[in-house]
Amino acid sequence: MNKRSRKIDVVIVGSIGLDDIETPFEKRTGLLGGSLSYACPSASFFAGSGMVGVVGDDFPEKYMSLYESFGIDLDGLKKADGKTFRWSGVYDKDMINRRTIFTELNVFGSFVPDLPDSYRSAPFIMLGNISPSLQLHVLSQATRPKFVAADTMDLWINTARKDLDRVVASVDMLTLNDSEARLLTGKHNLKQCTESIMKMGPRYVVIKKGEHGAMLACRTGLFLLPAYPVDAVLDPTGAGDSFAGAFMGRLAEIRKVSDRTIREALMYGSVVASFCVEGFSVDGLRRLKRNDIERRMTALRKMMG
Amino acid sequence: MNKRSRKIDVVIVGSIGLDDIETPFEKRTGLLGGSLSYACPSASFFAGSGMVGVVGDDFPEKYMSLYESFGIDLDGLKKADGKTFRWSGVYDKDMINRRTIFTELNVFGSFVPDLPDSYRSAPFIMLGNISPSLQLHVLSQATRPKFVAADTMDLWINTARKDLDRVVASVDMLTLNDSEARLLTGKHNLKQCTESIMKMGPRYVVIKKGEHGAMLACRTGLFLLPAYPVDAVLDPTGAGDSFAGAFMGRLAEIRKVSDRTIREALMYGSVVASFCVEGFSVDGLRRLKRNDIERRMTALRKMMG
Repeated sequence: MNKRSRKIDVVIVGSIGLDDIETPFEKRTGLLGGSLSYACPSASFFAGSGMVGVVGDDFPEKYMSLYESFGIDLDGLKKADGKTFRWSGVYDKDMINRRTIFTELNVFGSFVPDLPDSYRSAPFIMLGNISPSLQLHVLSQATRPKFVAADTMDLWINTARKDLDRVVASVDMLTLNDSEARLLTGKHNLKQCTESIMKMGPRYVVIKKGEHGAMLACRTGLFLLPAYPVDAVLDPTGAGDSFAGAFMGRLAEIRKVSDRTIREALMYGSVVASFCVEGFSVDGLRRLKRNDIERRMTALRKMMG
Repeated sequence: MNKRSRKIDVVIVGSIGLDDIETPFEKRTGLLGGSLSYACPSASFFAGSGMVGVVGDDFPEKYMSLYESFGIDLDGLKKADGKTFRWSGVYDKDMINRRTIFTELNVFGSFVPDLPDSYRSAPFIMLGNISPSLQLHVLSQATRPKFVAADTMDLWINTARKDLDRVVASVDMLTLNDSEARLLTGKHNLKQCTESIMKMGPRYVVIKKGEHGAMLACRTGLFLLPAYPVDAVLDPTGAGDSFAGAFMGRLAEIRKVSDRTIREALMYGSVVASFCVEGFSVDGLRRLKRNDIERRMTALRKMMG
């Protein structure tokens, strides 16, 4: 995609990292990782996406080229003195549960997400899982976005509840996993969790259940979305970010926000995430064509009866 | 329903028990339990069902009347000298995981399932979770059934593999949970599990995933079925049996076995199971009307997009 012609439909804020990942079958080091590395490529199949993140001076040039090969706008990507965020994890033999070996925040620890001028009027904004105060900082720079989704995690629910409540009150959609939804609301039943969260502000709540799919709640009811079943999971890292990125991209492509378009965009999220887990890092997305995505969408529609 | 006019569409074989159940909120003793007590009432909303099981001489008359109030045929129910099968379990606060406090087989330990003459030509047979050799004994008494489904569990996979393989080769559908599917096939990926099981014989494989729904595999592909989301689970016991019973009942009501009718019948299973978990024992099914079921079917269809 030519730089000049690039229009920023979706701005995504999050982390960029270098990952060491071990599965029962294979160990890989120095992989491209972080939520942005999954979400932006996934969005880019559908719409022009820009990433707001930070890398260190050790960030490999080949990964920069990889971002560009997806047509991602990099004006919001900062290069800071120091080392890139690093994460290392080991997956159980179920390929679902994992344990973190180490996390080094490095340059991500002092990251402040600033939107370039060209991003401020982007209609779709995805606030990846960073501190609620930084999510609010991003929101303060945006000019009347059409749709804002935010992700969060247990750390912020436990340590930054006041800012988090402000984020939740300001966004159109909150995404979080089932245990986080229970922690945030103090309720066990997931349907009741979504009802509590909607009272806090967002019109849409997505509960992510990993290999069991996701549940969307909105004012007109629930939508139960299965995960697309794949033959072999090579590396589940980034599935949720890929899901969210493709969702935002497809929604931006449709440009219309309604219960129907949200549902359809979530199905695209499920499909792109299924390609993501079939390779390490973003390998499963590299050679992916829109046709491949559409074929699985047709199959998913059939599987959902 | 008048006894003389009763036609046996579905024969269900399984256990009848008296349960002591403790949840984080409540403790109940001497409840009507066992797979038949859930499966037969659930089937009875759609078709004439007959139960093949055994109770002891301590089995309360009120539970016999309860069976009759559902219109279940009891010609296949044996009354043996001794005590009824008993089970006691405690649910974690997640209302999903449970631990067994005790199991007393009692009269169920020497049970031999014999079909009354009036059951032998029933078109639909559900072999509940009993030993594979007894499942084969039931099959040997049936006259050309239209559709046979069998359930199994880890115990039989580990201790009676040869007979189990014969059961699996003889039935149209095998139902089992995700960990059992992995144990049976030695594969982790559930899609691969269903492919291996279909090679063993059955045209249909249903992987039960509890609160995450179920996956149906057949020659034309997969069907991903969500669990119907309820506001509050009071007692999850019997959800799987209720699911299977309602499925068989609805399939018998339609009388036509195809990928489409199987899918629809499974959705009815999901709906009836959702009523089941809203009460202890079969309380959630006692006052249930067909209209209530149809309302949730309409809601489930909407939730599945």
